[in-house]
Amino acid sequence: MIRIVEAKDFSLKREEAEPYEKEREIVLDIIQHIRQHGDEALRAFTRQFDGVDLQNFRVPEDAFANAYNRVSPEFVAALRDAIANIRRYHEAQRRQSYMMIDEEGTTLGQLVRPLHRVGVYVPGGTAAYPSTVLMNVIPALVAGVPEIAAVTPPDKEGNVNPGVLVALKELGVTEVYRVGGAQAIAALAYGTETIRPVDKIVGPGNIYVALAKQAVFGKVSIESIAGPSDILVVADHTADPEYVAADLLSQAEHGETSPAILVTPSRELAEQAARALERQLTLLPRREMTEKAIRNMGAVVVTSDLEEAVEIANRVAPEHLELLVENPDDWIGRIVNAGAIFVGSYSTEPVGDYYCGTNHVLPTEGTARFSSPLNVDDFLKKTSFIRYSKQALLTHGHKIITLAEAEGLGAHANAIRIRLDKEGK
Amino acid sequence: MIRIVEAKDFSLKREEAEPYEKEREIVLDIIQHIRQHGDEALRAFTRQFDGVDLQNFRVPEDAFANAYNRVSPEFVAALRDAIANIRRYHEAQRRQSYMMIDEEGTTLGQLVRPLHRVGVYVPGGTAAYPSTVLMNVIPALVAGVPEIAAVTPPDKEGNVNPGVLVALKELGVTEVYRVGGAQAIAALAYGTETIRPVDKIVGPGNIYVALAKQAVFGKVSIESIAGPSDILVVADHTADPEYVAADLLSQAEHGETSPAILVTPSRELAEQAARALERQLTLLPRREMTEKAIRNMGAVVVTSDLEEAVEIANRVAPEHLELLVENPDDWIGRIVNAGAIFVGSYSTEPVGDYYCGTNHVLPTEGTARFSSPLNVDDFLKKTSFIRYSKQALLTHGHKIITLAEAEGLGAHANAIRIRLDKEGK
Repeated sequence: MIRIVEAKDFSLKREEAEPYEKEREIVLDIIQHIRQHGDEALRAFTRQFDGVDLQNFRVPEDAFANAYNRVSPEFVAALRDAIANIRRYHEAQRRQSYMMIDEEGTTLGQLVRPLHRVGVYVPGGTAAYPSTVLMNVIPALVAGVPEIAAVTPPDKEGNVNPGVLVALKELGVTEVYRVGGAQAIAALAYGTETIRPVDKIVGPGNIYVALAKQAVFGKVSIESIAGPSDILVVADHTADPEYVAADLLSQAEHGETSPAILVTPSRELAEQAARALERQLTLLPRREMTEKAIRNMGAVVVTSDLEEAVEIANRVAPEHLELLVENPDDWIGRIVNAGAIFVGSYSTEPVGDYYCGTNHVLPTEGTARFSSPLNVDDFLKKTSFIRYSKQALLTHGHKIITLAEAEGLGAHANAIRIRLDKEGK
Repeated sequence: MIRIVEAKDFSLKREEAEPYEKEREIVLDIIQHIRQHGDEALRAFTRQFDGVDLQNFRVPEDAFANAYNRVSPEFVAALRDAIANIRRYHEAQRRQSYMMIDEEGTTLGQLVRPLHRVGVYVPGGTAAYPSTVLMNVIPALVAGVPEIAAVTPPDKEGNVNPGVLVALKELGVTEVYRVGGAQAIAALAYGTETIRPVDKIVGPGNIYVALAKQAVFGKVSIESIAGPSDILVVADHTADPEYVAADLLSQAEHGETSPAILVTPSRELAEQAARALERQLTLLPRREMTEKAIRNMGAVVVTSDLEEAVEIANRVAPEHLELLVENPDDWIGRIVNAGAIFVGSYSTEPVGDYYCGTNHVLPTEGTARFSSPLNVDDFLKKTSFIRYSKQALLTHGHKIITLAEAEGLGAHANAIRIRLDKEGK
């Protein structure tokens, strides 16, 4: 079922994004309405798209308590351990401001400070993932963002997913609104009577949410728009084919367009993993979609050696890269393009999705060439600080004039000269 | 000429960006042609837009030597001092990878590594600014980017600005192509026979360059698209009105849409600065454009106290903020939204544009609320590293299964379970 190809015949065809013209028009229209009519429009769209008439968007206090009754104690315990791990990992990303003072008395610095207010979009329905809450909120908390507001679509009774509410509550985020879709993004960006505008919006969503985030980008900041999730496994003859198959399937179940690729110099492993994958697939709950993903975007690539396998990995620049080889340390440093590198038999990708501490918001669609996992820096901003001394200006002012005049910027030169003149220089 | 208003009557009207539909169509067409026809299309567009027929795009070795003969020794000396200052300031921004090992034997880490190849756009003609080269290239060099290529449009003889060439040469960037406009951006993003594709494109340009950068965003990374440059001066009665006026004018000369705003509780300073501005303006080389900027976007805002002045500053979130007050240290910490803060009489904004060491690529149009000056981080990428231990998986695996199953992701749970089963857990 999964195709097995030689390295020379392999190229990953990622589909070019559709233009989504119709959807874009709808989204722009929704944003316009929210900007003009605020809560009233938000109420109307929630009626239209979510099928519920809400007087108040804010999730009430008692909904959080109720949510705990609807999840298992094991779930809460596991969530708390995950939170502790994710917090610990991200705390190492904290930044310091710096300053430098020189002998002329000039102080230069870079102030590093948190964003003031961040909005987190949490999908609802069948894609309501508590883990999404952890991964988007914790880096903001660690950065020191003082205000975090969450939005998530309600069901027809006006309720939101209990797992999501528990996750938010565990993190201390209780400013939660029962709104979803493009209208929720517009409300976060421009504000309504109920929802104050934010500085940045993060979190995944469907195509309407993605297009709305693109449309409000500039008015607010956004993290990147995620494409289909992907995995690439680099393995040799020492890898367990059952593990390889299970790990490929764990990404494939995300959707029909999710690439799942094994690259190996071992033809034996290639064939064993392909058979194991077919066998395991029959037992999976999301079998149909997962099978489609494997048929569309799955591949087993047989290379002449590990060198070539790593080359292919760097070309693909996968979101998740698993390294299941005899001597991983010989190869880790050569993997330059990957969102996350999972090393060894026990580092299966779901470990990172849920639990170990790293962030699961990772660069997709080959953007690991230039992008990073979501991290604390995404919730910080920097400001340059300049206190130039009189001595410095008198000593170096003429050079600044030279540079400004070389660019024909006379008023820039004048701002220096007027000071030198006053000091009799 | 510059309007003087009370705080309650002031609001900064930034114009909403035009849709630029016609220009966008032209740009998409250019990109399409470059993708399909490579150098041949690049040659044709250079003939069409720059009026010169080029066989080779690469700037030849001897052009650099010639460029030094066309600039003054004072210019080269000033440039070298500026380079040393900018390098020193940015070196403090270097990042380290980190790793954490726990008692169960799990290693987590974040690898911080430079982008591999960066393209720098340098405008030509009357807007050819050597300082732009320094500000865009030095952070990339400090980050450790191994390949930096520059593009800049040629004149009708096929030559490029000597100041720009000298700046590039001083920084060791000798892979320079004589191409400009949207066609240069397309070539950097997609590659041609001559120009290999890059991972990130930085640098300012006209509307065609800006639209082209937007269009290739996703295929490559870009820094933000700059809007009109702006300045806001917070000053009290101790400020020198001549300095204030000169500094407002130094930003206004950037273009008709550049806001230049004084906010002060001192009506006397307001009036003196307005008169000084009118007087200084008559002496400036770019008088006409500067005057238009002041009439369009200039303002002197009189507030009831400094508290209110700082509030307005935070609302405007200026690119450049000057603080010319008696006790600046009482106020610096309250300025939360600004690209760069210049403190005191000698910290005129051109000091930062050219020389002191901070970057002059700063967040415009109020984006200082969530954006940062160009810095070394813009040329680094991070990769998560996970080596989960067998003991950790055996101990915590069941929690990961709980979390995955709560989200209905059975293949994720299976990837853990298959390992626990094998180990007899």
